[in-house]
Amino acid sequence: MERRQGLLLIADGLGDRPIPELGGQTPLERAVTPNMDFFAGRGLCGNVHPYKPGVPVGTDVGHLVIFGYDPDEVYPGRGPLEAFSAGIMMGPDDIAFRGNFATLDERSHVLDRRAGRIASGTEELAAVLDGMRLDGGAVVLAKPLTEHRVAIVLRQAGLSTAVTPTDPNVAGPQVSLPACMPADDSAEAARTARLVNEFTELCRRRLDSHPVNRERRAAGKPSANVVLLRGVGRTNGVEPIGRQFKLTCACVAGDLTVLGIARLVGLETFHDRRFTGGIRSDLRAKARKAIDCVRQGFDWTVVHVKGPDLCGHDNNPSEKIRVIEDIDGMFALFRQELDLDHTIVALTGDHSTPCEKGDHSGDPVPTFVSGATVRRDGIAITGESSFRTGSLSGLTARDVFRIQLDQLNVMPKRGA
Amino acid sequence: MERRQGLLLIADGLGDRPIPELGGQTPLERAVTPNMDFFAGRGLCGNVHPYKPGVPVGTDVGHLVIFGYDPDEVYPGRGPLEAFSAGIMMGPDDIAFRGNFATLDERSHVLDRRAGRIASGTEELAAVLDGMRLDGGAVVLAKPLTEHRVAIVLRQAGLSTAVTPTDPNVAGPQVSLPACMPADDSAEAARTARLVNEFTELCRRRLDSHPVNRERRAAGKPSANVVLLRGVGRTNGVEPIGRQFKLTCACVAGDLTVLGIARLVGLETFHDRRFTGGIRSDLRAKARKAIDCVRQGFDWTVVHVKGPDLCGHDNNPSEKIRVIEDIDGMFALFRQELDLDHTIVALTGDHSTPCEKGDHSGDPVPTFVSGATVRRDGIAITGESSFRTGSLSGLTARDVFRIQLDQLNVMPKRGA
Repeated sequence: MERRQGLLLIADGLGDRPIPELGGQTPLERAVTPNMDFFAGRGLCGNVHPYKPGVPVGTDVGHLVIFGYDPDEVYPGRGPLEAFSAGIMMGPDDIAFRGNFATLDERSHVLDRRAGRIASGTEELAAVLDGMRLDGGAVVLAKPLTEHRVAIVLRQAGLSTAVTPTDPNVAGPQVSLPACMPADDSAEAARTARLVNEFTELCRRRLDSHPVNRERRAAGKPSANVVLLRGVGRTNGVEPIGRQFKLTCACVAGDLTVLGIARLVGLETFHDRRFTGGIRSDLRAKARKAIDCVRQGFDWTVVHVKGPDLCGHDNNPSEKIRVIEDIDGMFALFRQELDLDHTIVALTGDHSTPCEKGDHSGDPVPTFVSGATVRRDGIAITGESSFRTGSLSGLTARDVFRIQLDQLNVMPKRGA
Repeated sequence: MERRQGLLLIADGLGDRPIPELGGQTPLERAVTPNMDFFAGRGLCGNVHPYKPGVPVGTDVGHLVIFGYDPDEVYPGRGPLEAFSAGIMMGPDDIAFRGNFATLDERSHVLDRRAGRIASGTEELAAVLDGMRLDGGAVVLAKPLTEHRVAIVLRQAGLSTAVTPTDPNVAGPQVSLPACMPADDSAEAARTARLVNEFTELCRRRLDSHPVNRERRAAGKPSANVVLLRGVGRTNGVEPIGRQFKLTCACVAGDLTVLGIARLVGLETFHDRRFTGGIRSDLRAKARKAIDCVRQGFDWTVVHVKGPDLCGHDNNPSEKIRVIEDIDGMFALFRQELDLDHTIVALTGDHSTPCEKGDHSGDPVPTFVSGATVRRDGIAITGESSFRTGSLSGLTARDVFRIQLDQLNVMPKRGA
């Protein structure tokens, strides 16, 4: 059986709604996309539901389904997702929290939940927490994320996620720092709550006197002298794609959430400073890295572009058109550089982000799966309207994951 | 309400992918099929998912869904499927195994798992096992299948499927015959394991000295002096179609797997030596037998043709075209011989077997449901591309089962 490779471009927030200023077209319909059109014409097209029809999803859930998972089964909660985003490879025993560097006064009131949206120095602050040992040998892993955010993992067998958050969700001189409490009657929950409270106490001791905080106080800024915890969770036994299907998989991305999900499901991640996850990300460099991954022999390579989603959130159709045309330039490179007889090339998005809404919507997402051996829908214009009658319309992103693997000839057979 | 009858032709492995040597057409698109086109034009068409989009299925699962079942609920495992293939009508208490005639040396090493792929004499060998009584009155049923294969059923109340196989899966002078062990703590599993080990011992005693084996040894061939067991299962409470819907149902086929599934779900099976399940099966004789079944008054008659699947496995598009044109000849007979005003005629396949893949794929299967009173999609060209926009596209084979029964006016109402 012939060996094939797959390349999927995920254009975040790609789908849109008709825009009056565009004469009722969407940005994707208005954009000039000869290379997407080329690929669409050589395969299956459609508007694909990220999850359930009409239900908007976040970037995290949208990517889980693109990678073939049922989020109702495996969604691990925000703590683990941020841990993977920060580059912590969690094991099945670990529990993770979303952490905030925050400001406590001397009587343990939470004055600022974000330590004045601290922008620098969190690397150093996290470093004094990372590797701390708690009572009984539990290890703390701490890695900074953007601004005040920090991923916190506790590593030891026998921990429980049945514990309350220490983030009070509000701040002020009357708001006391909550103690972590067990949320069920188990010995594991009681012990985990004790460890979390020990963690909080150690944070205060190690952070308050830290040079970063001495400098902040000297400059009249609030100290980052505690870490508030919420969003506890564990990995819920997600089985990596590679192990499920005996494939090697790569993900080229700059966005931290996408990198986190990719690590959670076992994709090998590739990022560098040119992949910003922002509107000015270097898309040609991303395309070249993805082509490299295919050439290195990865069975399935995913490349993520954040731009269309940001333009949707900004209510900016003209910029969304520009970004989509830049993405078409990535497909031009794929068309030039890849062996199209043996590569399945696909486009989708994790959800729609209509400019008129300025947020994610449940509208299905324009999608194609293209290749020399793929059946053809005969639709060579890329857009929400033209894709409506394609074979993939009405299917879900999980279905499209399986269809890609089937076109790679690696989807296992059910029955004999 | 008018009484109607249904006739469904299952063309195994019918669907395909575009083939460059055919100018991007599939075998079904290239084949000249005026009679399929006639029926397609008088009904609903579409490309139908056998199970979940993108998931390839085996012949067994593919037929279970064509017959309206959810394989995730009722798939009984390979043992029962082979028992029904061999013609053993299992009851709900029975447990079944896939058996292999194999070669043991005097110190119980498994020298050959297939007794040299023994080709004759298994009828006589199975006969001395069939009807054996084990301790406590359990009865052994044994029926030969092709080559070294033999279906083994244990019949008694209170048996368990929680037992380990006695087939070591490898062979050689160092490989000992494994004892059957209980796989859970129940008394039923312990007792069933004891019965299986008693069966093994009785096999050895009755087979080794059998004339078939004396002849084999004289000819320098390995003895078939034991039966190795694996794939244990029971019927999982499949309720026959006929009982569910108060219908009489027939299945005309030569392929043993299809005959087994048909018996499992309670179809009356018709086969004779002209229906080989092979590429040279007498398709006109099969068509005539199916027409007979309709004339005899069966409410729903299924006729199975294996040929397209075999051509797909052989990467042979031109032969697949020829077989499809022969199948069109069956539809010519249906067109001449059946009362088309009162017969719903349908075509589907259990899965696609693309020639380029040489194996089953998850691609949806070209399907029509045709009759004087059926709504018309207005598509009178049979093929994957033309059927793409038909009403059945995107549905599953289970849906198409219900649609056929509904067109027969026998589908029970949900609600009042």
